[in-house]
Amino acid sequence: MSPTRTGTLGDLGEFGLLRELFSVFGQTPDVIVGPGDDAAVVSVADGRAVVSTDLLIEGRHFRRDWSSAADIGAKAVAANLSDINAMGGRGSALVVGLGAPPGLDVAWVLDLAAAMQEEAASIGAWIVGGDVSRADEIVLAITVLGTCPDKVVTRSGAQSGDQVAVAGRLGWAGAGYAVLARGFRSPRAVVEAHRRPHPPYDAGPQAAKLDATAMIDVSDGLLADLNHVAVASNVLIDVRTDAFEVDEPLQAVGAAIGTDPLSFVLTGGDDYALAATFPPSVRLPAPWRVVGRVLAADSEPGNVSVTVDGRPYDGEMGHRHFA
Amino acid sequence: MSPTRTGTLGDLGEFGLLRELFSVFGQTPDVIVGPGDDAAVVSVADGRAVVSTDLLIEGRHFRRDWSSAADIGAKAVAANLSDINAMGGRGSALVVGLGAPPGLDVAWVLDLAAAMQEEAASIGAWIVGGDVSRADEIVLAITVLGTCPDKVVTRSGAQSGDQVAVAGRLGWAGAGYAVLARGFRSPRAVVEAHRRPHPPYDAGPQAAKLDATAMIDVSDGLLADLNHVAVASNVLIDVRTDAFEVDEPLQAVGAAIGTDPLSFVLTGGDDYALAATFPPSVRLPAPWRVVGRVLAADSEPGNVSVTVDGRPYDGEMGHRHFA
Repeated sequence: MSPTRTGTLGDLGEFGLLRELFSVFGQTPDVIVGPGDDAAVVSVADGRAVVSTDLLIEGRHFRRDWSSAADIGAKAVAANLSDINAMGGRGSALVVGLGAPPGLDVAWVLDLAAAMQEEAASIGAWIVGGDVSRADEIVLAITVLGTCPDKVVTRSGAQSGDQVAVAGRLGWAGAGYAVLARGFRSPRAVVEAHRRPHPPYDAGPQAAKLDATAMIDVSDGLLADLNHVAVASNVLIDVRTDAFEVDEPLQAVGAAIGTDPLSFVLTGGDDYALAATFPPSVRLPAPWRVVGRVLAADSEPGNVSVTVDGRPYDGEMGHRHFA
Repeated sequence: MSPTRTGTLGDLGEFGLLRELFSVFGQTPDVIVGPGDDAAVVSVADGRAVVSTDLLIEGRHFRRDWSSAADIGAKAVAANLSDINAMGGRGSALVVGLGAPPGLDVAWVLDLAAAMQEEAASIGAWIVGGDVSRADEIVLAITVLGTCPDKVVTRSGAQSGDQVAVAGRLGWAGAGYAVLARGFRSPRAVVEAHRRPHPPYDAGPQAAKLDATAMIDVSDGLLADLNHVAVASNVLIDVRTDAFEVDEPLQAVGAAIGTDPLSFVLTGGDDYALAATFPPSVRLPAPWRVVGRVLAADSEPGNVSVTVDGRPYDGEMGHRHFA
């Protein structure tokens, strides 16, 4: 263990911490100016950049008693890269703000940083800069820049008659959350899914090439996120429950805690799957699975615009914020 | 007063708050996809982007009893744009993360957002996206993308023999901080300078055109920030005190609190002036003023590398973090 891994942020100081982090993040040839200056300089392939930012707060977005520093770092980066995926792009450069109490262990921060870098590198992205500050709670602020597909896929292009399809796992992280919230640590597969999502990073650019009309990543829950698409596109979206296979670990969790396991699939967040709409003529290859249909809106704009098997869903459609 | 300005964030909820913020930030033709989708899409003129991020925490970077929401928003954006200025670039698009307790007034957040937008618009930049989250303390995470000069000015290019020059006010915000920290509200000019900096936004690109060899913005204090340049460039920087005029309000504060007012100029942060080095042959136009000289390093790398009138400075050179 390197001597700088011992001790707290207060012992190390801001500039000492930044030096340690620079050595974690390193440099790549794609980055024109990397960490350590007033700003970083990155190349942007075709003169357009996709940009998204996430703010994650301890106790609300992650818990240190549920997840390791590496889990938290990998998930934070995955969630942010997922936003670029949902536009049909691919993340290429990230900047990270870290707020932390001075008593936090340096080793925890370095494990967090290394896992962030590793998750980014898994798709060829790089952490190019950041900021650190003292804070009472641990705060992670991540911004990602990405390459732009020829035609960006927004939330607002869904058309009546389109197919609704998903790519990636649904409900696993939600089932993991349900287990962890009850003080259990198994089934391990869903707990791991909550700790480390695996977004379908290739499916976003693939959907753009397949002429997806609208797309979103499933962070709050499938129904809640499809509702954002429906409202932005001024359409109604109907989801068919017979289109979903409820994976075995979800059935086990449902049976153990007395919950319909389909609710994890429909309303569980944090798996960072993609949901998209495609013209009816498009034949969808794997990993895309058709799960519903876009209909003409029949209600006031702004109303709930997602139905399940033709009926309003009886329950919360996903996570509520500021509640 | 619009009805949505009353009440708290908890009353309004995340999505209600986002809707209000979108209407503050609006849309411009330069932004290909603006707020409200998974990510924003911006144009990047020449295929390179400068990017920087700042994390600001209530009680550490701002105080609601010292500054209005509008002051805090304008200063946060100014500080972030200043980082791009210090590379010789110009900010063009920003994303903002806001963490806040549910009891915070919506009106406070909307005033903050409007002032952010106004400060950005003052140089033609735009807020293109963001994220909001519940948090115990107010947290602002700002990331800016900017255009790139032909030759980016980093901290590491200073050469022995170069002139050291500054642009913008020095010490005013530091004097304002000293006054506010003692419970006073005057002299008004320095208190206002602490609340709302006015970075010399044109001087950064100007310095790049004048072949500046290194540049930094003065956020922690002139000596502390010049020390970053000296260390990154492996040189010694000497500052001449007779090069500075100590403005009248600083003299008044110094006399009132028994401090040498020159210390505000040399070590006060938060004015977001620029300090840069230029080859000796360059004739510097206003607002640049020569205040020192770059010398060959005569000490171990990593040591304090800034002197004042040829001697080490007797005191803190600027703000210390995680202290």
